Amino acid sequence: MARWYQCRREVNPPPDRSLKWRAARRRPLFMSSRELHNRLANAIRFLAIDAVEAANSGHPGLPMGAADMATVLFTEKLKFDATAPKWPDRDRFILSAGHGSMLLYGLLHLLGYDAVSMDEIRRFRQLGSLTPGHPENFVTPGIETTTGPLGQGISTAVGFAMAERLMAARFGSEIVDHRTVVIASDGDLMEGISQEAIDIAGHLKLAKLTVLWDDNRISIDGPTSISVSTDQQARFAASGWNTLAVDGHDPVALLAALNTAYASEKPTLIACRTTIGFGSPAKAGSEKVHGSPLGAAEIEATRKALGWEAGPFEIPADALDAWRAAGRKGAEARAAWQARFDALPEATRAEFNRRMAGELPVAALKEAIAAVKAKAVADGGAVATRKSSEIVLDTLTKAVPEMLGGSADLTGSNNTRAKGQKSVTPTDFSGDFVHWGVREHGMAAAMNGIALHGGFIPYSGTFLAFADYSRPAIRLAALMGERVIHVLTHDSIGLGEDGPTHQPVEHLAALRAIPNTLVLRPADTVETAECWQIALEAKDRPSCLILSRQNLPLLRKDADGENKSAGGAYELLAASGEAQVSLFATGSELSLAVEARALLESEGVPTRVVSVPSFELFLARPLAERRAVIGKAPAKVGIEAAIRMGWDSIIGSDAAFVGMTSFGASAPAKELYKHFGITPQAVVAAALEQLRQS
Amino acid sequence: MARWYQCRREVNPPPDRSLKWRAARRRPLFMSSRELHNRLANAIRFLAIDAVEAANSGHPGLPMGAADMATVLFTEKLKFDATAPKWPDRDRFILSAGHGSMLLYGLLHLLGYDAVSMDEIRRFRQLGSLTPGHPENFVTPGIETTTGPLGQGISTAVGFAMAERLMAARFGSEIVDHRTVVIASDGDLMEGISQEAIDIAGHLKLAKLTVLWDDNRISIDGPTSISVSTDQQARFAASGWNTLAVDGHDPVALLAALNTAYASEKPTLIACRTTIGFGSPAKAGSEKVHGSPLGAAEIEATRKALGWEAGPFEIPADALDAWRAAGRKGAEARAAWQARFDALPEATRAEFNRRMAGELPVAALKEAIAAVKAKAVADGGAVATRKSSEIVLDTLTKAVPEMLGGSADLTGSNNTRAKGQKSVTPTDFSGDFVHWGVREHGMAAAMNGIALHGGFIPYSGTFLAFADYSRPAIRLAALMGERVIHVLTHDSIGLGEDGPTHQPVEHLAALRAIPNTLVLRPADTVETAECWQIALEAKDRPSCLILSRQNLPLLRKDADGENKSAGGAYELLAASGEAQVSLFATGSELSLAVEARALLESEGVPTRVVSVPSFELFLARPLAERRAVIGKAPAKVGIEAAIRMGWDSIIGSDAAFVGMTSFGASAPAKELYKHFGITPQAVVAAALEQLRQS
Repeated sequence: MARWYQCRREVNPPPDRSLKWRAARRRPLFMSSRELHNRLANAIRFLAIDAVEAANSGHPGLPMGAADMATVLFTEKLKFDATAPKWPDRDRFILSAGHGSMLLYGLLHLLGYDAVSMDEIRRFRQLGSLTPGHPENFVTPGIETTTGPLGQGISTAVGFAMAERLMAARFGSEIVDHRTVVIASDGDLMEGISQEAIDIAGHLKLAKLTVLWDDNRISIDGPTSISVSTDQQARFAASGWNTLAVDGHDPVALLAALNTAYASEKPTLIACRTTIGFGSPAKAGSEKVHGSPLGAAEIEATRKALGWEAGPFEIPADALDAWRAAGRKGAEARAAWQARFDALPEATRAEFNRRMAGELPVAALKEAIAAVKAKAVADGGAVATRKSSEIVLDTLTKAVPEMLGGSADLTGSNNTRAKGQKSVTPTDFSGDFVHWGVREHGMAAAMNGIALHGGFIPYSGTFLAFADYSRPAIRLAALMGERVIHVLTHDSIGLGEDGPTHQPVEHLAALRAIPNTLVLRPADTVETAECWQIALEAKDRPSCLILSRQNLPLLRKDADGENKSAGGAYELLAASGEAQVSLFATGSELSLAVEARALLESEGVPTRVVSVPSFELFLARPLAERRAVIGKAPAKVGIEAAIRMGWDSIIGSDAAFVGMTSFGASAPAKELYKHFGITPQAVVAAALEQLRQS
Repeated sequence: MARWYQCRREVNPPPDRSLKWRAARRRPLFMSSRELHNRLANAIRFLAIDAVEAANSGHPGLPMGAADMATVLFTEKLKFDATAPKWPDRDRFILSAGHGSMLLYGLLHLLGYDAVSMDEIRRFRQLGSLTPGHPENFVTPGIETTTGPLGQGISTAVGFAMAERLMAARFGSEIVDHRTVVIASDGDLMEGISQEAIDIAGHLKLAKLTVLWDDNRISIDGPTSISVSTDQQARFAASGWNTLAVDGHDPVALLAALNTAYASEKPTLIACRTTIGFGSPAKAGSEKVHGSPLGAAEIEATRKALGWEAGPFEIPADALDAWRAAGRKGAEARAAWQARFDALPEATRAEFNRRMAGELPVAALKEAIAAVKAKAVADGGAVATRKSSEIVLDTLTKAVPEMLGGSADLTGSNNTRAKGQKSVTPTDFSGDFVHWGVREHGMAAAMNGIALHGGFIPYSGTFLAFADYSRPAIRLAALMGERVIHVLTHDSIGLGEDGPTHQPVEHLAALRAIPNTLVLRPADTVETAECWQIALEAKDRPSCLILSRQNLPLLRKDADGENKSAGGAYELLAASGEAQVSLFATGSELSLAVEARALLESEGVPTRVVSVPSFELFLARPLAERRAVIGKAPAKVGIEAAIRMGWDSIIGSDAAFVGMTSFGASAPAKELYKHFGITPQAVVAAALEQLRQS
């Protein structure tokens, strides 16, 4: 028997209808023949070739190599409807190797996603097009998540698959029953984050997660053998995955493998042996086809080799018809789903729709926040803001049931677990608290996936110093505009003895540097409640809640409805007369400012204190409002147990600053504040020096 | 036969001399009996218990659980001499689970490392002690690297093991023949970076690397089973490791396993099944003993359970004698090594000593830099600074043979491979270029290990946007004061079509935020050469070389000996008259400043241009010098295709800034500069507006 699919270099095999073409499947194959399959896959290949050539920039190698995988997936297995890109029960497809974006754009165009017209394909990588260099879900309908930084897609996919299980546990598998399918590259699997992701997925037995590994054995530097010797199947199996290996250009084998994967009770890796740049006579199987246009001559040669008669950006009618039919074939499933959904009780439907739309239960949220603030003022007393956060969460998670908590193995330290929260386990997804393990990066990426899937507002904790581990995923959340909430505790030298490896110094500045990210550093329980409200209401951006390990006094004694933190900065204490000094502080240093104010006032220097829980919110306000908060006192001092970077945008470069200029040290917290000169006395001295100079 | 070692809860078994105590070893055991072994291990345990109790802070669980492993290692296997902590051919021991620092301090004290006196043990976690909360190699003699952020130790260890092989390939195994041994925790193995590290180690067949996994099945949140299901032995085996599993409290089994590991041709993982807090009747085997003092009553109970008669901070004479003898037993090996070393040719000895001391070949370096600068000025023409860097490296790597290059699978894009460099392979470590694979984080940590080991100046490349992936390791390099050089190319929207996932916007600020880090952004080939010189000469800090993808004109036409970049900022072009405008720019934007100056001068506005290749170097200069460079022009404009954060420390918050305020976009570079308003015209407009306001 002709084993054509083993001859991967024979790029254009004769049509073969004698194959066990039907035996491998459970329902009628969409494509009627190997020949049609080839034409469908070649349509993807040539759209990628043509778009990259026109842009003179891009990555043809992956789309050409993965076209067979994608064709089988989208014509045979995935559940979707091109006319309804946001259908909640669609399968999610994630191209982790985002540089192969033309694979996605080609698919979306061929399947009939309206927005992705041929004009957009022609405008690949041009300003304002729907076809940017890497897939951007906030730009292009039909794209589930933004990929490009390797390892992120496969890890975000774990979040999608978790969200599906979590929603199914709440709304039933009649309404929530879809899969998450990933195409990942060698590079994705080399990134450490992928290990965190596959660990989590294996542990949680996310059976509806399938990863197709584009095993083309080529990386940018050359054959992967120059840097990789890992047996990937064995590695995934070690983490509890089902694994298979197939010829990635054999549609029958691919379909059979997918059928096996779908039947498994574990997540599945399918190692798909492919040829990068499949079809290009001179460049296939080489790193030369990874990230450069093929060039006119090689395109012509590829056209001949693959028997592709159509011109650039042309799709033969038979291929387009078949693709368009594939794009519509989910309509029936969607209609059936809609009927099941419509049969639900109205309250269930409303709750499902509310959660998928990311709308908050506004009244309950406001009530919860008000209650916490009132109780905090009534209780008084010193509390670490991480503990304040726990107090807030105890009430808030009941009012906002879509909140999904967690911690990177620091639950008791981050105080992220609210009363009554239940652990998510491999056999029970009705819980609302995730033990992420010591996997900050995988956690942050999975939280992105959970937010992107819809239905939950994920929040989770680690130490602020270890936000560095999650940083690439936090950045993606900001770029995508996703509401994920990072609870980052132990936020300064105030953590004490654990020393400089654990003491953030530059992390506040580094997080504030990321566009579209909210960095919230509350000073007491009232501000912590306000910051939680801000984070929840910030629908289109991630938030970082920066919380202290050490106890802090209650400074806000008002508990009325106003969220003062929402303005980013506000006057906490007015001066006794015309202000000579304005003190600006955040979080744990706000009480130092209050102490310094008392000392200055006692020396006859009228001093006001401004609390600055969020730079971003403050800097977004109109200049006049900002000026009013900054005030006109001749002396200004900023106070934060961190570096000055970023502060000048608030207080100006002429102001004084009391903070850190180096790494921290290991000692009890109080000694460290003294050692590094972050004391009320130092603030007073800085203020008086400023006054002298003014 | 009594299988006492299988009864891990029987914490104080009767002495058993009937074991196959001698059969398991190849040379006489240092300890004469299981009883003595127990006493030695208990000495570690009680130092940890007492120090944590006195500090009322710290982690007793790991030292108590890992004491048996450490005792066998240090009395039986490791090659070292407590009187010579810096002996170049010592074995390197790395406690990846740095929170168990008292294990290290206890060992160092017991072995007779002078500096770590009992007074220092008593001062555990106090300000200025030699015994900080986490191990800091720059504080405590005998500590090889700083650990604490999980995953870093095991990954840094890979660098140590690589450096050993690389040095052995250069100086012979008579002079370089030592091992790297790691104790790692569950948390270390959950961090994704550990996968990158074990991938690299397995690929390179680093047989002299041995990892003892403290498999205590407890994490902070509780049993590891709540978040981990991975078969770690299978996982390591998948990456080409030899793996073994033993009872981590059985010295005979441990010794046998270590002997097997030492004989293997692969790196070895020994899964050591242990009980966290071994010996504590009430807390052993529970997360309660991880990070809190035992408390007086439980200490007493532990004392009884382990039969430990000595008081707090007391070591019985027999145990101390035995430990001290263990500390000296390497003296003979060291003397033999010294004799072999002394027999080497003088030039070889000098070169070895120079490289291990981290001293540069000053004359050759200067000559190389001067030659590159002269040639650049003679050649003229526009060159991307990543290409400039390659030009520099072609000459520099010949002058400075300890430079060890590499790239995270972007060799051709980072331009980090110099002419004549040879790849390091599993069978040949005489090369000087490492294909790190798509493993930025593991690469950065391993580079730290290579620098710490001595003998090399590691440099390597990735895209600037992906510095986020390496950030935790870059931070550690800065904290430790290690000379590692990160070549970070594609440094702005100037990379063009790859779009916002790949376009750094906040990364310059975020890197400048890390204390003790040099961020160098040269503008042309001459500055690139100067920045390479700065990075090499910065012996006690990491450097980030920030380089463009796109071509940049040669702006520096002088090629004399002076390194103008070394001052951080300097006047590139003077104004035609008394300066009305000062333009400040870095890297690719310096040419925009030059163009803007021409426009302003043509409109009769005397304008000067200041190049700012390094904020850190500039801000370290005396105020008067800084003022002279900043000048007195009434209008100041900063220009950088990145966010403003950090710039105010140079130009002041009243100055104008032309740069980025959001993420980038996918389009050709020139269009993006226009789209985001980073043009000479925008600079002119900003300058004129400033003049109007002044």
